Amino acid sequence: MRPHHDGSALHVPEQAPALGDTVPVFLRVPAASPVSRVYLRSTPDGEPHFTAATVDRRAGGEVWWRAEVEVRNPVTNYRFLLTGSEGQRWVNALGDFGHDVPDNTDFRLVAYDPPPAWVRDAVVYQIFPDRFARSAAADAREVPDWAIPCDWDRTPVIGRGPETPYQFYGGDLDGVAERLDHLDRLGVNTVYLTPIFPARSNHRYDAATFDGVDPLLGGDAALARLAAAVHARGWRLLGDITSNHTGDSHRWFVDAISDVDAPERELYYFDESGDYESWLGVKSLPKLNWGSAELRRRFLAGPDSVLARWLRPPYGLDGWRVDVANMTGRRGRDAYTHEVAAAVRAAVTGVRPDGLVVAEHGHDFTGDLDADGWQGTMNYAGFCRPVWNWLRADGLDLPDFLGVPDGVPRRAGPEVLATMRAFGSLVSWRALSHSWLLLGSHDSARIRTVVGDADRQEVAVGLLCTLPGTPMIFAGDELGLTGRNGEDSRTPMPWRRPESWDEATFERYRKLVALRRSLPALRHGGLRWAYADADSLVFLRESPTESVLVLARRATAEPARLAGLPWDGTEAVNLYGGAPTLRPDPDGALTLPGDGPTFQVWRLPTAG
Amino acid sequence: MRPHHDGSALHVPEQAPALGDTVPVFLRVPAASPVSRVYLRSTPDGEPHFTAATVDRRAGGEVWWRAEVEVRNPVTNYRFLLTGSEGQRWVNALGDFGHDVPDNTDFRLVAYDPPPAWVRDAVVYQIFPDRFARSAAADAREVPDWAIPCDWDRTPVIGRGPETPYQFYGGDLDGVAERLDHLDRLGVNTVYLTPIFPARSNHRYDAATFDGVDPLLGGDAALARLAAAVHARGWRLLGDITSNHTGDSHRWFVDAISDVDAPERELYYFDESGDYESWLGVKSLPKLNWGSAELRRRFLAGPDSVLARWLRPPYGLDGWRVDVANMTGRRGRDAYTHEVAAAVRAAVTGVRPDGLVVAEHGHDFTGDLDADGWQGTMNYAGFCRPVWNWLRADGLDLPDFLGVPDGVPRRAGPEVLATMRAFGSLVSWRALSHSWLLLGSHDSARIRTVVGDADRQEVAVGLLCTLPGTPMIFAGDELGLTGRNGEDSRTPMPWRRPESWDEATFERYRKLVALRRSLPALRHGGLRWAYADADSLVFLRESPTESVLVLARRATAEPARLAGLPWDGTEAVNLYGGAPTLRPDPDGALTLPGDGPTFQVWRLPTAG
Repeated sequence: MRPHHDGSALHVPEQAPALGDTVPVFLRVPAASPVSRVYLRSTPDGEPHFTAATVDRRAGGEVWWRAEVEVRNPVTNYRFLLTGSEGQRWVNALGDFGHDVPDNTDFRLVAYDPPPAWVRDAVVYQIFPDRFARSAAADAREVPDWAIPCDWDRTPVIGRGPETPYQFYGGDLDGVAERLDHLDRLGVNTVYLTPIFPARSNHRYDAATFDGVDPLLGGDAALARLAAAVHARGWRLLGDITSNHTGDSHRWFVDAISDVDAPERELYYFDESGDYESWLGVKSLPKLNWGSAELRRRFLAGPDSVLARWLRPPYGLDGWRVDVANMTGRRGRDAYTHEVAAAVRAAVTGVRPDGLVVAEHGHDFTGDLDADGWQGTMNYAGFCRPVWNWLRADGLDLPDFLGVPDGVPRRAGPEVLATMRAFGSLVSWRALSHSWLLLGSHDSARIRTVVGDADRQEVAVGLLCTLPGTPMIFAGDELGLTGRNGEDSRTPMPWRRPESWDEATFERYRKLVALRRSLPALRHGGLRWAYADADSLVFLRESPTESVLVLARRATAEPARLAGLPWDGTEAVNLYGGAPTLRPDPDGALTLPGDGPTFQVWRLPTAG
Repeated sequence: MRPHHDGSALHVPEQAPALGDTVPVFLRVPAASPVSRVYLRSTPDGEPHFTAATVDRRAGGEVWWRAEVEVRNPVTNYRFLLTGSEGQRWVNALGDFGHDVPDNTDFRLVAYDPPPAWVRDAVVYQIFPDRFARSAAADAREVPDWAIPCDWDRTPVIGRGPETPYQFYGGDLDGVAERLDHLDRLGVNTVYLTPIFPARSNHRYDAATFDGVDPLLGGDAALARLAAAVHARGWRLLGDITSNHTGDSHRWFVDAISDVDAPERELYYFDESGDYESWLGVKSLPKLNWGSAELRRRFLAGPDSVLARWLRPPYGLDGWRVDVANMTGRRGRDAYTHEVAAAVRAAVTGVRPDGLVVAEHGHDFTGDLDADGWQGTMNYAGFCRPVWNWLRADGLDLPDFLGVPDGVPRRAGPEVLATMRAFGSLVSWRALSHSWLLLGSHDSARIRTVVGDADRQEVAVGLLCTLPGTPMIFAGDELGLTGRNGEDSRTPMPWRRPESWDEATFERYRKLVALRRSLPALRHGGLRWAYADADSLVFLRESPTESVLVLARRATAEPARLAGLPWDGTEAVNLYGGAPTLRPDPDGALTLPGDGPTFQVWRLPTAG
């Protein structure tokens, strides 16, 4: 074991520090380490400042060093300098190093308002409304002119082709409300709906208005009914807002393109020729210009703004997932992203102090968090992709991962761990632990297709439910549905074909979600990597009240031996996976079973 | 050898890309590497974009891949994805990796105006005016009330103590002008003066006004004379400006503290009690508030502003070193640093399009470059400290390095290289190669004291003159002067004691500076690390017209064998250090001599 610190409560008791506070932080150093002095380094107002740490206690084979950090700036970064007979080493969020390190992987205290408390315990279920469930009312609705009507149980989803955005299955919001018992059985507690505004596609990311819910989904009243049903269960409901663009049928855009003097003209990017900027050149998705004060007014200002209106009764969305957040406000010289993010959060919390704002970000999100904006992100880069790399099936022939070409490479445990650390270390613990873990979405292949079998899917879901962050499950994954890309994965839920459900997989999801929801350490605990080899990943989740040991293994491998674990050396009872109770070897080390694929969780009793 | 790219002209022919350009970039991959496809990844407007690279040519055992980058944003980042039989690897400014990497170590193209062209060929000589040289006029000047007059050749500098800032030796600007022949012999071409405004200390960082040169230095006229003398030699002259604070005797501050309604009040940070913010709590250095429009007006606006006035005739400073740039504009919630940096640059280039702005930054500067502000930094973190760590004398007992406690640890070559790469990879090639390499300054111990002997000092100076960046020599280092800390190092130049000069060291400085100024590869070439062990560092500097191989060794070690070097395999003639001409081993590898300490440079003939 190496010296350890992270931003969890065991090491940073004050989880919501305010500007001007001085807060204690704790570093754990194995008692056998040749460390004689520890300093805390922070950079108040831009200048390094060192303070000496003191030994707070010795417990479980570790020395707990205590230092104090002055929260001088909204984001206060800090790391530790350890000195002793082996020279100077730095401990930061990336690890410990015998060379000098830049500040960007420092630990961070964030003095901005924290995300809402309910998020720490959330398990999100993602619903793509056209494909989740049809209420009886759906049969009576007229199919719109753009749509190619499809039979829920018979027409295959065409993954790639001109008809893809128009295949219309007709799911609606009352359909969702009727199926909440399914979500309850699964154990989730937060429903995330992809867009529900009228549009000219099945995905509705090309909003024609933000002023009303698509009548094809049941309209405003259906949203109110669904919100009431979700909230009646004590759950949360999230929407999906396109801040980067609208559809070209949006009334703003129709006005803007028809009249150079229209007040809507400035909402978009028109050039002299009348051409306009659009999302990746897709002309049906004209890009919004966040340099426009009028756009900010319409989107953000007051209780009837686009963002605020749907957070209020009778809808009461509990927050927004922000589509294409990575591009929002970015174009050429324009770099409004961070101020837009802050304004979006302010607009949300202005009407809903407990509102959530989560950014879609398909790659490196680390530069866009920890300001006063997005409270978390969809963690594709630091979770989804490395898990795919580790667990991918032999012979998988997907062409890319969210546009990263040349397939999905197979990678060994240490590389997967390096990826997770690389991204996780560049943001605060708060931002990491409030970001969404996901194994796929409506924009990717399904995890079952990626890993190829139920056993490796269990390992993937195990990681989803035990690593820091908010688990997000794409509807249908729990039934073992398959899909080779985002469109292809938008499979209608097979409600009428229960014989097709992978009940064993559902049961594993259910148990793992329950495990996460029952163990504080999995929801709020720190993260300490204990071991990695090509086929194994082992880590601890430690909270002030409990410690949990997790083994994920993609294949049978040499049993891992762990020395120096912080526990009392008695018995570690298995909590998931069915492996035996663990007892220490004669030398005090712990030997983990070597079979695989497997996912195992034990409670680790601690001396403290 | 590994796949290689850097921002130098060999790999990025367009060194000053403009927004909207599409520019070619080149990646070199050893021919034996199992690489079958190469993609370039950039993130225009925040979204990843991949383009396929093509093979441009094969030369010197390498495949040159060509890709194009669209310069869509002022800072355009990019990296390479290499695929083949060994899977996917990323190549970025930090190295090449088999795991996923964040974008912060991507290569960068910067579309802001480039730094002035003369900087690429500059060698800077730092002069602390009170200690460099006295003209005859100095004897006639009255010693000010705060000063403790000292005898140039007899009174030792007191490094730490209450008298330290008041020891007054009386150097002046005409004294500097009289000694320019010394600088000419050394071979430098840029003079950097620490502050020259009136103050109440020998260092003058506590400016009493920005409106005139200190009469103790000869006043405005002496500066004009010095500037004329410097410019007559075709050299450049740089000043030192305190943007973070003034002295408490500054007329702005005197007015501000005496009258709460004074227009100067807002220039500083006063609280309700009348107390004020100061630099690290030193009350004689009240901190400037860059939220003040009045401060910006006085400092930046128009040809008579603080910054502009001294850049114009008859003074014509060629730019500013910006004191405490790391803290400027930072305080609590205030984060004006980047906008102040941009405004400072604009103020300078507004009157002097070829003006230079270099930031003092004693630690991690990487977050403050590559915007439209500081054109470079004082590279303590990525050069000075790792060189000290590598070459430090046995038994060195300095208490700290610029405040980093617990002495100066001894580190091996790979850790030193890791430090240099860690900092260098977080900024553009432009920012790295326009930052100042330094072995010490008026704020640190002297390099001779750190390394302990002339031979290791030669190795240090060798690195100073051969790595990318602008070499800065602190006056007196070239004579082998010693000093244990910043104050103690402010040694008066021993003009009248030539017997005390280390002439051999001066000759090494002279030759290494001349080498740098004569070889384009050392001034403009790329940087490719070839080998590192505990006692050795080996790298290539490659320009479109020549390649140079550099060996730095702190002690005798195993001879290093280099395979796969990009050269024509004939003879590498020694250019510095006296080692023999190198010829390839029978297997084509190159064996470098193993003795040390040594610093050697060879010209490496290339096939291209």
